[in-house]
Amino acid sequence: MKVGFIGLGSMGYAMAEQLRSAGHALVVYNRTRERSERLLGRGVRVAESPAAAARYADVVITMVADDAAVEAVTLGDDGVVAGLSPGAVHVSSSTISIALSQRLAAIHAKANQGYVAAPVFGRPDDAAVKELWVVAGGPQAAVDRCMPVLEALGRGVTRVGESAPAANVVKLVGNFLTGSTLEALGEAIALTRKAGVDFTAFLAVLLEVFARPAVLARFASVIANDQYEPAAFKARLALKDLRLALAAGDAMQVPMPLASLVHDSLLTATAQGRGDFDWSVIARLAAERAGLGSR
Amino acid sequence: MKVGFIGLGSMGYAMAEQLRSAGHALVVYNRTRERSERLLGRGVRVAESPAAAARYADVVITMVADDAAVEAVTLGDDGVVAGLSPGAVHVSSSTISIALSQRLAAIHAKANQGYVAAPVFGRPDDAAVKELWVVAGGPQAAVDRCMPVLEALGRGVTRVGESAPAANVVKLVGNFLTGSTLEALGEAIALTRKAGVDFTAFLAVLLEVFARPAVLARFASVIANDQYEPAAFKARLALKDLRLALAAGDAMQVPMPLASLVHDSLLTATAQGRGDFDWSVIARLAAERAGLGSR
Amino acid sequence: MKVGFIGLGSMGYAMAEQLRSAGHALVVYNRTRERSERLLGRGVRVAESPAAAARYADVVITMVADDAAVEAVTLGDDGVVAGLSPGAVHVSSSTISIALSQRLAAIHAKANQGYVAAPVFGRPDDAAVKELWVVAGGPQAAVDRCMPVLEALGRGVTRVGESAPAANVVKLVGNFLTGSTLEALGEAIALTRKAGVDFTAFLAVLLEVFARPAVLARFASVIANDQYEPAAFKARLALKDLRLALAAGDAMQVPMPLASLVHDSLLTATAQGRGDFDWSVIARLAAERAGLGSR
Amino acid sequence: MKVGFIGLGSMGYAMAEQLRSAGHALVVYNRTRERSERLLGRGVRVAESPAAAARYADVVITMVADDAAVEAVTLGDDGVVAGLSPGAVHVSSSTISIALSQRLAAIHAKANQGYVAAPVFGRPDDAAVKELWVVAGGPQAAVDRCMPVLEALGRGVTRVGESAPAANVVKLVGNFLTGSTLEALGEAIALTRKAGVDFTAFLAVLLEVFARPAVLARFASVIANDQYEPAAFKARLALKDLRLALAAGDAMQVPMPLASLVHDSLLTATAQGRGDFDWSVIARLAAERAGLGSR
Repeated sequence: MKVGFIGLGSMGYAMAEQLRSAGHALVVYNRTRERSERLLGRGVRVAESPAAAARYADVVITMVADDAAVEAVTLGDDGVVAGLSPGAVHVSSSTISIALSQRLAAIHAKANQGYVAAPVFGRPDDAAVKELWVVAGGPQAAVDRCMPVLEALGRGVTRVGESAPAANVVKLVGNFLTGSTLEALGEAIALTRKAGVDFTAFLAVLLEVFARPAVLARFASVIANDQYEPAAFKARLALKDLRLALAAGDAMQVPMPLASLVHDSLLTATAQGRGDFDWSVIARLAAERAGLGSR
Repeated sequence: MKVGFIGLGSMGYAMAEQLRSAGHALVVYNRTRERSERLLGRGVRVAESPAAAARYADVVITMVADDAAVEAVTLGDDGVVAGLSPGAVHVSSSTISIALSQRLAAIHAKANQGYVAAPVFGRPDDAAVKELWVVAGGPQAAVDRCMPVLEALGRGVTRVGESAPAANVVKLVGNFLTGSTLEALGEAIALTRKAGVDFTAFLAVLLEVFARPAVLARFASVIANDQYEPAAFKARLALKDLRLALAAGDAMQVPMPLASLVHDSLLTATAQGRGDFDWSVIARLAAERAGLGSR
Repeated sequence: MKVGFIGLGSMGYAMAEQLRSAGHALVVYNRTRERSERLLGRGVRVAESPAAAARYADVVITMVADDAAVEAVTLGDDGVVAGLSPGAVHVSSSTISIALSQRLAAIHAKANQGYVAAPVFGRPDDAAVKELWVVAGGPQAAVDRCMPVLEALGRGVTRVGESAPAANVVKLVGNFLTGSTLEALGEAIALTRKAGVDFTAFLAVLLEVFARPAVLARFASVIANDQYEPAAFKARLALKDLRLALAAGDAMQVPMPLASLVHDSLLTATAQGRGDFDWSVIARLAAERAGLGSR
Repeated sequence: MKVGFIGLGSMGYAMAEQLRSAGHALVVYNRTRERSERLLGRGVRVAESPAAAARYADVVITMVADDAAVEAVTLGDDGVVAGLSPGAVHVSSSTISIALSQRLAAIHAKANQGYVAAPVFGRPDDAAVKELWVVAGGPQAAVDRCMPVLEALGRGVTRVGESAPAANVVKLVGNFLTGSTLEALGEAIALTRKAGVDFTAFLAVLLEVFARPAVLARFASVIANDQYEPAAFKARLALKDLRLALAAGDAMQVPMPLASLVHDSLLTATAQGRGDFDWSVIARLAAERAGLGSR
């Protein structure tokens, strides 16, 4: 396919190379022309503006830093919207706000252009070995049209439905989940360091016990089904364990704010008469805080 | 081996059955005798007290509800300490406080008895299919002695060193980590529900992207090495994403206290001049809060 | 003085009445004309647009709901900027973002108009009895010019300096402080309810012990001077008390997230070797998180 | 009256001096005798043990560091319980756990001795000028009996009812409230510092607006009555302001975890359909987390 690619940072560059390797005809644009030229003479053409890159493309991908950068390359006389043909598709892979994604969906729809949000999970070195994971949202026809391009970017694509911003939500939620893991690991490792636990042994347990897709899938399904009985592990017993973890933190002088957050959720569940439910019931509390009723 | 087993709740019962299947000679004790008798007549003897169960055992395991229950079966005239022979080993598998584990280590040492803390990860139905993971801490000779018993309990054993309480710390930290995942999933799923994201698609992304041992191992190693440069993903860029996640939560009315916690850590790192470090640097903040210096 | 007043919600209406009572010549504008007319025929004129209200005024006050409403009445052909004479002053009393306040300062400066941010503390019924407190920020000459108007609004005015947005910061911080008090009272009263403490007695203690300007002034000064020795009350002793408060919450099943936050700050201070400092040292932690050095 | 006084730390010493000045006959005990002797020869006798101090007293006060210290001076052969006459009263002024206070109440009741918990608010230099505030809980007759002593300690006494531990709860809650104020001031002052707000001006606003007993009383009463309509300030408007405060913190790189906590409570209230209630409704959320229904 004829593909425009806008934004050749370390991630964008690696993605563009994957597209070239997959045999797509590539026209690239980057704010500083120098990076574009590194791809030139390898069957890649360089455009003078985002609009020019978009003009002859079936699919144009934008992969830039933030909302402001996306607006800069998309709107205005030189932007993607000005150049893209009716029926061609703008694939936005940047991590941007839901509000901007909604706005872009409306703008492109008005211009009879396709708009697909397709953020990616992974790092530049994952991109370089085609190990990214792509999450795509948008009208079915538009997503269908650019699937050959999306599939060339990484090891797989998950389609989240007709709403483009839904894909951006999944990307933001994903980064939040990883950040939560880092916060949790920070507190956990601080405590084990102070307790003199051997790190190699601790890591071995982590890998045997926590990094298990089956466990995550089980919990996520329980939460999605909103069904917390019968309990595999009761909230009131988990509360006891969090209390002991905090006591250990207190004794060894390791502040554990995330442990307090989990403790408070379990205490809330117990105080509200749900202590015999499975401890994943704390996810129902999160839903209730958001005003969501039972499924 | 001759094994005493004290505490036949749903977890203890399944563990005792594994020991029997593995060919160990079992003497059991439970507060309510009824549960013990379900094992009787299947090559298992029933003891009248914890002390009696301990008396003829090489290794006696306690698997009861909490600190108070462990004290009740261990101390006093009828307790494990009173019955256990010099050189025999008490394996404490209950999830208990660090303080009690330290105290038990001292009491058994004084009585010339072995003491090993060996909490288990998994649920009763995991125990029933020998899928538990055991974490063992204690003096090397004592752990060596009871390894045949520990290995009969589950799919593997991690030894964390000469300190018994270290094993309890790992267990508490483990439950904290799982609780953190539940809290994070709760907020994440509430947001995706309100955003209209299809759950099956979301779960697919979760499994492809998050439940990956390699990712966890990579982060844990970075944190343990306390080395945050070069950055795979910069703290200040992650901060932007958390800000967007919170903005999405605000717009859709989904309170996300854990996301705020992660955001604040990333903002702290950035405000302190560490915005270009890898975002796992938030674990260094946790260490610094605990008064720990660089490695 | 000739005063334009834009925004006759319950707060704005009461403020406008104070200005009329003080003898200022008033021209009012409200989005729904009906509210304006309640003031008509009492020496007050009604304008057809914000620009018209601004046109003949020495000082024009805007008191509307949020950023969007301020933009709507200030910018555009019918807005305050279009109508205001050079040298006249726009007093913005709405609670708005720092970003918008900065933008308005620049816009008015370019138009040779004065701009003063003057948010107010108090409620509509305080306004009705001239009990508001006004916080004013902006270039000295502009603030001087509108002081007769500001003084007519409430029981006093605090000038925070040449920067208009600084006044908005003080307003936002003020509402944050009150919100914090509500959160703290919520947890405190939940615990005392469960403990069976008589509310009247509790309130008496609150009033005798906490609502004391001298106490607040003492703490604020210690924090501003960043001087935590000698300690009036040591951080490590306060840590003990917070631990006991959390233990009481645990025992009575009252989740106390704010108490956990305070506990963690005190534990951090202690873990970092500052346990013998005055407990107000937790404010230094907040400053350090923001990358601020010692004073 | 004949008063025993145990514990002559800086606070206890100042309290003992007040009792001597008020004309009570004083027998003192301190772990290190040296401090006792500073009071000797000024009409004060020194006892060799807590029991000895208690033996001839009508009322014996203990003012020591923590639970362990209270147990040390109260229980055992040399302790207060062993020395105190039937009908005489033990006044415990230390800040201790609810659990220990409950236990002491039971022990003294069994020994036909009175037990009153009477923690004090204030610092040693407040004690030195009789500015402490005393909170007393216990059986009416016992409290009546020691009122002359309690009144000699400070500027006033609040009686919280027949339950001694209730007084301890009030003390712990009080210290929590002050700690919350410190945490809030820390974040507030960090933000105003970065925003360049003049501290003197900020302090002036604080004193005019926040340190007002009437405001605190108004909020506390609304919360106690659990009546949030009509709203003086709606939760959804307060939510907007907290959102702006957090945005200011973000822009100036000031992490504000407490502001996030308040924001999340207001967002929860709004998401649950209570956005038009007074913003003090966040206290109802705290009550609901504790499983408390409406009043």
